[in-house]
Amino acid sequence: MKRKGEGILAEVRKGHKPLRVGMIGYKFMGKAHTHAYRDVPFYFDSPLQPELTAICGRDEAGVKEAAEKFGFASYETDWRTLIERDDIDLIDVGTPNNSHAQIVLEAVKAGKHIICEKPLAMTLAEAAAMWKAAKETNIVHMVSHNYRFAPAIQLAKKLIEEGRLGKLYHIRAAYLQDWIMDPDFPLVWRLRKEVTGSGALGDIASHIIDLARFLAGEIAEVTGMMETFIKERPLGEMAGGLHASKEAGTGKVDVDDAAAFLARFENGALGVFEATRFAAGNRNRNCIEINGSKGSLRWDLENMNLLQVYFTDDEPGVQGFRTINVTESIHPYTGNYWPAGHIVGYEHTFISMLYELMKGIATGTGVTPSFEDGLRNQAVMEAVERSAAQKSWVNVNKLLQEALQEA
Amino acid sequence: MKRKGEGILAEVRKGHKPLRVGMIGYKFMGKAHTHAYRDVPFYFDSPLQPELTAICGRDEAGVKEAAEKFGFASYETDWRTLIERDDIDLIDVGTPNNSHAQIVLEAVKAGKHIICEKPLAMTLAEAAAMWKAAKETNIVHMVSHNYRFAPAIQLAKKLIEEGRLGKLYHIRAAYLQDWIMDPDFPLVWRLRKEVTGSGALGDIASHIIDLARFLAGEIAEVTGMMETFIKERPLGEMAGGLHASKEAGTGKVDVDDAAAFLARFENGALGVFEATRFAAGNRNRNCIEINGSKGSLRWDLENMNLLQVYFTDDEPGVQGFRTINVTESIHPYTGNYWPAGHIVGYEHTFISMLYELMKGIATGTGVTPSFEDGLRNQAVMEAVERSAAQKSWVNVNKLLQEALQEA
Amino acid sequence: MKRKGEGILAEVRKGHKPLRVGMIGYKFMGKAHTHAYRDVPFYFDSPLQPELTAICGRDEAGVKEAAEKFGFASYETDWRTLIERDDIDLIDVGTPNNSHAQIVLEAVKAGKHIICEKPLAMTLAEAAAMWKAAKETNIVHMVSHNYRFAPAIQLAKKLIEEGRLGKLYHIRAAYLQDWIMDPDFPLVWRLRKEVTGSGALGDIASHIIDLARFLAGEIAEVTGMMETFIKERPLGEMAGGLHASKEAGTGKVDVDDAAAFLARFENGALGVFEATRFAAGNRNRNCIEINGSKGSLRWDLENMNLLQVYFTDDEPGVQGFRTINVTESIHPYTGNYWPAGHIVGYEHTFISMLYELMKGIATGTGVTPSFEDGLRNQAVMEAVERSAAQKSWVNVNKLLQEALQEA
Amino acid sequence: MKRKGEGILAEVRKGHKPLRVGMIGYKFMGKAHTHAYRDVPFYFDSPLQPELTAICGRDEAGVKEAAEKFGFASYETDWRTLIERDDIDLIDVGTPNNSHAQIVLEAVKAGKHIICEKPLAMTLAEAAAMWKAAKETNIVHMVSHNYRFAPAIQLAKKLIEEGRLGKLYHIRAAYLQDWIMDPDFPLVWRLRKEVTGSGALGDIASHIIDLARFLAGEIAEVTGMMETFIKERPLGEMAGGLHASKEAGTGKVDVDDAAAFLARFENGALGVFEATRFAAGNRNRNCIEINGSKGSLRWDLENMNLLQVYFTDDEPGVQGFRTINVTESIHPYTGNYWPAGHIVGYEHTFISMLYELMKGIATGTGVTPSFEDGLRNQAVMEAVERSAAQKSWVNVNKLLQEALQEA
Repeated sequence: MKRKGEGILAEVRKGHKPLRVGMIGYKFMGKAHTHAYRDVPFYFDSPLQPELTAICGRDEAGVKEAAEKFGFASYETDWRTLIERDDIDLIDVGTPNNSHAQIVLEAVKAGKHIICEKPLAMTLAEAAAMWKAAKETNIVHMVSHNYRFAPAIQLAKKLIEEGRLGKLYHIRAAYLQDWIMDPDFPLVWRLRKEVTGSGALGDIASHIIDLARFLAGEIAEVTGMMETFIKERPLGEMAGGLHASKEAGTGKVDVDDAAAFLARFENGALGVFEATRFAAGNRNRNCIEINGSKGSLRWDLENMNLLQVYFTDDEPGVQGFRTINVTESIHPYTGNYWPAGHIVGYEHTFISMLYELMKGIATGTGVTPSFEDGLRNQAVMEAVERSAAQKSWVNVNKLLQEALQEA
Repeated sequence: MKRKGEGILAEVRKGHKPLRVGMIGYKFMGKAHTHAYRDVPFYFDSPLQPELTAICGRDEAGVKEAAEKFGFASYETDWRTLIERDDIDLIDVGTPNNSHAQIVLEAVKAGKHIICEKPLAMTLAEAAAMWKAAKETNIVHMVSHNYRFAPAIQLAKKLIEEGRLGKLYHIRAAYLQDWIMDPDFPLVWRLRKEVTGSGALGDIASHIIDLARFLAGEIAEVTGMMETFIKERPLGEMAGGLHASKEAGTGKVDVDDAAAFLARFENGALGVFEATRFAAGNRNRNCIEINGSKGSLRWDLENMNLLQVYFTDDEPGVQGFRTINVTESIHPYTGNYWPAGHIVGYEHTFISMLYELMKGIATGTGVTPSFEDGLRNQAVMEAVERSAAQKSWVNVNKLLQEALQEA
Repeated sequence: MKRKGEGILAEVRKGHKPLRVGMIGYKFMGKAHTHAYRDVPFYFDSPLQPELTAICGRDEAGVKEAAEKFGFASYETDWRTLIERDDIDLIDVGTPNNSHAQIVLEAVKAGKHIICEKPLAMTLAEAAAMWKAAKETNIVHMVSHNYRFAPAIQLAKKLIEEGRLGKLYHIRAAYLQDWIMDPDFPLVWRLRKEVTGSGALGDIASHIIDLARFLAGEIAEVTGMMETFIKERPLGEMAGGLHASKEAGTGKVDVDDAAAFLARFENGALGVFEATRFAAGNRNRNCIEINGSKGSLRWDLENMNLLQVYFTDDEPGVQGFRTINVTESIHPYTGNYWPAGHIVGYEHTFISMLYELMKGIATGTGVTPSFEDGLRNQAVMEAVERSAAQKSWVNVNKLLQEALQEA
Repeated sequence: MKRKGEGILAEVRKGHKPLRVGMIGYKFMGKAHTHAYRDVPFYFDSPLQPELTAICGRDEAGVKEAAEKFGFASYETDWRTLIERDDIDLIDVGTPNNSHAQIVLEAVKAGKHIICEKPLAMTLAEAAAMWKAAKETNIVHMVSHNYRFAPAIQLAKKLIEEGRLGKLYHIRAAYLQDWIMDPDFPLVWRLRKEVTGSGALGDIASHIIDLARFLAGEIAEVTGMMETFIKERPLGEMAGGLHASKEAGTGKVDVDDAAAFLARFENGALGVFEATRFAAGNRNRNCIEINGSKGSLRWDLENMNLLQVYFTDDEPGVQGFRTINVTESIHPYTGNYWPAGHIVGYEHTFISMLYELMKGIATGTGVTPSFEDGLRNQAVMEAVERSAAQKSWVNVNKLLQEALQEA
């Protein structure tokens, strides 16, 4: 007996406009991106339907297991092969930072759309080269600053754009974690400069730089400081993955455990930024506050569904920060998820981001944050590093222009 | 050229032990359950892999669209047909309350495993019949009290079971919403007694009753009050779905807008419960506090990743409620999701719940909350309704025993 | 050499219109009231200046020390003597509850103004007699429900009176403490029915009843439950004060450790009330939430300077509870204290209350909360006690009328 | 008839060891200090009893009114006369900053004990001279950094001293206000450099510098930025007090509206500091967070009774910030105020501070924060100003040593 609607999935698939994904890297970000690709068509009426075509990693056993677990139709062990495949439309780069540039440059050459994990590159020079290459083509390029897509951040953006906060005076942002405080925590790749470029700066400060740029505009100049509290850490198999060492003993931590900087924005606002993995008890506190002439807002990733907003023109006597539960159907994205008060989580930032990527590819209009955002972010980070080394203020745009000329 | 791992998905599928799902109902709960079935194998190493075999609804256009959107392989328009299908292992009942009993009883007869949305039934008598039927078979039965599976609630359960709160004195729980406060909000099915059985009581009080039973044990007796603040509401198409009326005008709201009750638990603890949809500004505040001789805890669904815990034996001078971010790898379920501080949301309560259902079916040991929990929940609700009508205390177990005898 | 302004204090005193205070009781409440009398003229332009004329207690050494510490000009050891003194205008009653009635009745006879600590009496009958006696005179009478005078509560009252919350649907209030959880805590007077009348009910539930009556109007009927978790406690000197026993061993706790009740208000709102001293970790959480058709508010004594307010007519998309820091110059009383954001504390509730008392005496218009409020509060408490004993609802006004007829 | 204990106050006064206060300045700080002097003997068993001997201000009508209101026995209109009076033991300096140095230097010469409002001076050079003068005498000197005396801050200090936070990594502190955001707010003295020295820096950053120094030790070097957002403000009578101008029109704001700086502490910790009066909605948010190898703490003046503390050695699974209600009898000072959970406010920081001053004078051991603390604070501020001007890091101790040599 034939079931009603039997074959419906095949029909659905025929009706789809697929977007074939080739993913490079299958760890934390591979998992987060894959999950989001799977969920985009479930939650959104997306013009393109991601297909999990292939996933790539150097370790065949590992990547095969990931392919099975995540639902990819095939796998590769050489990313160049993946990029060459003609059944791939989008390259998703989730590898450690030291391979971003070469992968991206190859993918650009191959005419693939690209989403690359943040930070975009190891250095500003690399980022400049990547952006230059990409912008001369018609590919859609994105850097994966997923937190922009938290509904509360989107609401914040809308309020600022509408002028609800007036002229901006202050941005204060911190990204506080505590996962490497134990001195016995091993020398994983995120603690090795040759693989990661920088420490807290690139890993987490880059996120608050992106939020600040998204909400408050470009940073003109910075002065920063960086510190490594634990200078030696255990090597050995614990260090994990391809970067594990067979040797016992310890190795030198050559990236920052913490970074902080002052900033002046082009619009005259003042910024105070801090990123650390040594803030005990702060599991993942990515927080930003903005004060303007007409109002203020506060956000914290650990309660990511809430946005606190204050308006100076609220009636005297009943003024106060409003705690907005950004889960209503009129709020950005949330109407596609669940009813009001049924909160979304970390993974939804990726789902909404990849939905925007699907739209950006489908319409050909591109998407933000693009490689240009990745590049500008990298310029801020490089300015922080230089200022910390030189103990002086560094002009961000000057650095950026120099890098573009040299690229 | 053959791709590496080509055919990998087919192989994976062969290796699977599938669990074929037949879902009845495709609205809010249909969406939540479907999403969770899709995610179970992504996040968990599940002994059974849910397959979206068929979905059922009376409106063919609607159910076909849902099947396409959700990814079901087929659909049905008659739930009896669905239950009869031999390619279905599990019936998932997400229809309005007035059809739960007949569907469940048929599914039991057909030997299908069953998960049924809460409240289990329209009346205690129905629930007793359902449980009696189910327990005489080998089927696995579950009532969908998903909030038990919030990681913070699981941690709370663990702490109480370990005796960390000592002897329990107080349970206070409230479920506060505000989505029907507008008098022009139409007479939807959840406001019609013939379809829904009760109002706030069955819809949301049932959740806090379940949390209280899960964490603090059985309720011995209750006295309650119920109120309908808006007694007439618009009929008409706005009322939605199959229950929309062609007539203009208004209809009588014959269920409670709010319900509250006092309770005595079998262990001697006192309970205070309140459920309402008329608490302006409270989008979905499902909260519970428990006080015992050695400590206390507080939880609120709107910040569902947090559990506040107080221990009387903490060192004097530094005693205080600890705000635990229940997102660490050592916490229940969360190790399967994301790193510490990367919060999960509403949908994860369903994912973890259905993972438990897969385990319960695979092992044959069953699962909680079972129909027995649904039955006991229903007994509390019926006691509340009777006590509100009689203006006196009502013994819950006595009601339950009577219902079981009559069933 | 004569200093400028020398003798200024004598001049000030001459210019004063003094209000001579005779205080009975010198423990916790004696301290709180005394401090407030001293501060009234410092903070407020009060029409009457409290003078600390005499303080009374049975233990001469104790009362002498209190007089010295507090700054009273004399002391007495017999309250009848104090009341007879013609240099006393106001009797301030801060003794244990079992002496309120006789002291108040004598003070009324003597034509003194009276402020009496809450609860007004041991029983409704006593309270009725006290109120009847007082209202037939021209004295100003007040019951010391100090929390009404928290600036945030005054703001709440104003908002409700202005209709900003619309029709009221829900009042939920709890007063949670934990100071007698230790079973070795002795049998102090607050745990002996003959001295205190009731336990948590009279001590702390009376406060939330007063807040609810102040903000939401009269309670029509209640059903309650009461419980004593620790039924025997150590006697002996630890029990303190005049009530300490020389005997070793334990004594029976004959008052409630916890009380909870449901209420229906005359305006149709539903109330849920709970008071306990067994809520571990809750040092002094006196909290109230009110939901109406146009808005909601939340308050908690532990953060007493904050009022959370929600308005349904706030612009969609930016609706949320506003956290109002009720410390601005435009807020009730706070302009007399400190600049915005410089919080006030527990003692300021008394200062503002006694300022109102000074005004009420000066103008002859009386003051609220008066003995009528004390009486109505007592009627609610008696109704709770009866309902708990009878396990049924009790009509508050009926009880009140009966008591008035019998008084 | 003689009353019992009649004449008791005279006896009490005889038994007192008085400390005769001469106060200069009678506005905000005059009120705060006066109130505290009055309350010290009420709450504490103080070895010295403050007597309100004289108050001084240039405007006779104003100071006379203050003397009457506050309860001073006399007044003066010339501070030099006040200092010369032999019936004054302690000079309390609450005038605008530009008179601190000359008043203090005269008071030192006259051998009076001194408490001076913060910031101690207009410049580091002034502060150095003041400290040098004071330390060569036997007078007790104090700078009025009252927030040190918040019970929660005292608890924080204790925990850090006990090593409960381990090695310190991070200090982040902000003092956010919003009271001068309106461009029509007039050019009051706190906005004129010649009177106030600096703006947000001296007024509020000095408080968080003091808290940081108190809790985390000396600051080695800083780099800062300062900004004036509203550069012209109305002159005219609105500007208030002696500094009001008869002229209409506007005047130049020549102090900072906001200041921020990075710091390195001598112990290796990193500091991030920000002070502004342009943070809309932040009425008085003076907050500090400290992270160390074994734990963290968080404090905010707006909820000043709470201290949040995290310990890394709490049992895994139940780790989280503890919200300590620092109002228990075992907490610093609070046993002298009210029972647990009955919060204290802003004014209690002054009461506890002045109680410490009484002890420091009585014992002759001095008190902290002393002028040395005022001096070190000033050195940090001067370093911030220089670094902002030079756009480079400035070594604090080097500045301090230079100032001491030149003083």
